[in-house]
Amino acid sequence: MDNPSCIITLTTDFGTSDAYVGIMKGVIFGINPDVQVVDLTHAIPPQDIHDAALSIHSAHRYFPEGTIHTIVVDPGVGSDRRAVVCQTDHAFFVCPDNGILTYLLQEIENTGAQSINAVAIQNQTYYLPEVSNTFHGRDIFAPVAAHLSLGVLPLDIGPSVADLVQLPVPIPQVSGSTIIGQIVKIDRFGNAITNISESVLAGIGSTYEIRVGGTRLMRLNRAYAESGIGKPLAIIGSFGLLEIAINGGSAEVSLGLKWGDVVEIQRYD
Amino acid sequence: MDNPSCIITLTTDFGTSDAYVGIMKGVIFGINPDVQVVDLTHAIPPQDIHDAALSIHSAHRYFPEGTIHTIVVDPGVGSDRRAVVCQTDHAFFVCPDNGILTYLLQEIENTGAQSINAVAIQNQTYYLPEVSNTFHGRDIFAPVAAHLSLGVLPLDIGPSVADLVQLPVPIPQVSGSTIIGQIVKIDRFGNAITNISESVLAGIGSTYEIRVGGTRLMRLNRAYAESGIGKPLAIIGSFGLLEIAINGGSAEVSLGLKWGDVVEIQRYD
Amino acid sequence: MDNPSCIITLTTDFGTSDAYVGIMKGVIFGINPDVQVVDLTHAIPPQDIHDAALSIHSAHRYFPEGTIHTIVVDPGVGSDRRAVVCQTDHAFFVCPDNGILTYLLQEIENTGAQSINAVAIQNQTYYLPEVSNTFHGRDIFAPVAAHLSLGVLPLDIGPSVADLVQLPVPIPQVSGSTIIGQIVKIDRFGNAITNISESVLAGIGSTYEIRVGGTRLMRLNRAYAESGIGKPLAIIGSFGLLEIAINGGSAEVSLGLKWGDVVEIQRYD
Repeated sequence: MDNPSCIITLTTDFGTSDAYVGIMKGVIFGINPDVQVVDLTHAIPPQDIHDAALSIHSAHRYFPEGTIHTIVVDPGVGSDRRAVVCQTDHAFFVCPDNGILTYLLQEIENTGAQSINAVAIQNQTYYLPEVSNTFHGRDIFAPVAAHLSLGVLPLDIGPSVADLVQLPVPIPQVSGSTIIGQIVKIDRFGNAITNISESVLAGIGSTYEIRVGGTRLMRLNRAYAESGIGKPLAIIGSFGLLEIAINGGSAEVSLGLKWGDVVEIQRYD
Repeated sequence: MDNPSCIITLTTDFGTSDAYVGIMKGVIFGINPDVQVVDLTHAIPPQDIHDAALSIHSAHRYFPEGTIHTIVVDPGVGSDRRAVVCQTDHAFFVCPDNGILTYLLQEIENTGAQSINAVAIQNQTYYLPEVSNTFHGRDIFAPVAAHLSLGVLPLDIGPSVADLVQLPVPIPQVSGSTIIGQIVKIDRFGNAITNISESVLAGIGSTYEIRVGGTRLMRLNRAYAESGIGKPLAIIGSFGLLEIAINGGSAEVSLGLKWGDVVEIQRYD
Repeated sequence: MDNPSCIITLTTDFGTSDAYVGIMKGVIFGINPDVQVVDLTHAIPPQDIHDAALSIHSAHRYFPEGTIHTIVVDPGVGSDRRAVVCQTDHAFFVCPDNGILTYLLQEIENTGAQSINAVAIQNQTYYLPEVSNTFHGRDIFAPVAAHLSLGVLPLDIGPSVADLVQLPVPIPQVSGSTIIGQIVKIDRFGNAITNISESVLAGIGSTYEIRVGGTRLMRLNRAYAESGIGKPLAIIGSFGLLEIAINGGSAEVSLGLKWGDVVEIQRYD
């Protein structure tokens, strides 16, 4: 990765009703007027590190090489929690070291396909001149990301660190002909996304019953529209995970599904 | 239209609480880093094709020639519904062929001022390498729009098609001294926008009574502020359509107006 | 300030559920395709000029010199209210003359550090060809901002004016060992931001009790995380103002705080 990227993405829990996100962009453009800034989402539930970890993991692979992902969900702002820049073969991640990269780090460990290097953010040269105790998105993360986009190297920003914080995350349990997983995300359409990947599901064969709440589904759809309007269905969603949905409706509302609900899959022959 | 545009607009029902829209931008910038991407709105009510059709129709004329409008409200994603690129004298439209261009096509038919050519999206060269069954915004529409912005021609993307899907839409009924129309949109301010255009209204003269719900209005305002604070009023809104509003308030809340409500206009002498 | 800026910011009460903001960007890019457009916020409560005045004041200093701030919260649109371009040493402001620059003008008066020049927007050359009575954001403010970004001078846009409209704003009252201020903003996290600045607070010493609603706080935190989860705290927030917060929660919800609530600070020895 020789050339610095021309894209910085922003993922925060700041919402868009205050000017916080716009201010971060002002800081970035003041340092590098030519960078592209892309909002991933600013609607991470306040201080929900796990949701941010899922979002950045599902999104980062769709950005070009060298993209700088800035992720600010930071309940420990102003305390002694560490802030880091992580560089993979593909991208940079600028964020507090609070578990926000958990899914990314797990994928790298599991696949062994990429190297990862992390530095602690310490070089105040790359901060705004005044640093508040409450808004490091503006004062530290945005300017560090902007300097990276100009070609500053991670090792200029601080010393190498290891042992990044990881959250415990729910892993689906497979035993014989059964998979026990759970719902890890409800999206805007009310689709309930599980932690059961297409490959885990394929591992128990091709005929099975899916049970969640009081609903039982006997097959995977290839399209939402294969089921009647208002009918529940199971489908492999756009991130390769099993998803429970309602054609033309909301599984969250109609089936009462929510984060953490158990999804049980039982093979039959 | 010789030069490919440098603007791609996005109109979806994805909301901004998930990273879906950001991911589409990642795909676009991976193909054309120099394009400008503009969000029209991502708050189309889920799967409301009619609302998307209204939005793109009211907005497209304010963009420079050659703009590529990408519209993804797509309840039939993954089924055999057609996807299209439409080219007018002024712009490109990349979308499912599900009626989302209804108002645009009607305007072109009614005015005869522009030609329109459509192709079915079929050339997988311009898709992402892997295509899901649930997120063609990311896998097909975004990359096709990005390739168009690089100068790829519609005929490289697929064969010409005709007979694009059109939705039935409410047309105001004029008979003698009466117009019967309806409310087709409530905006963020609670203004109730009707399907009665300034020219249809002028057709019955200049003195008339406007009735909607229990409200009767005897004249058109030239500005909201011509009426007292909290007073209902009628005005020609920013898209040339009759609008019912409250000065400093919400007609939706105060008058109880909603989508589909009948608006009756009666000339008097 | 010799070179025109390459950034235009937008602050409105339009929300993002309609295409209004996207349309303003279409107009801007049609005039200057190379400008950067940054959303500050579009969630100003409808017609809340005071909230817009606070937002632009807190945000503008983080943008590079020459930035053009376009602020459209405009209950008087279509009436004879004046529209202006204001130029300071640092930036341009394009907006209705309705008090939206109150905090900026007060700061300039109080510090004497900057000059300010204002012109009334009158030269229709820089408007869209058709001007509606309801959407000057699209028809006047966006195109004027875009022309400024191309180097058009304020004096080409209209004649100099003085006596810009200012709103009455709540100023904290200091008498002896007491400060009486109030809450002027609740942010997305439910933090209650007061009008008491760090320097006003320092003026009464370093030991004091802060009272708001039924809550009493005896010290300033340096970080949210210095207090236990769920505990109320006082901190100097990111704009240098005293803020009442809950670590890991919402002061708005847990303490019942709202706009206008009195905050009393009493020194003790």
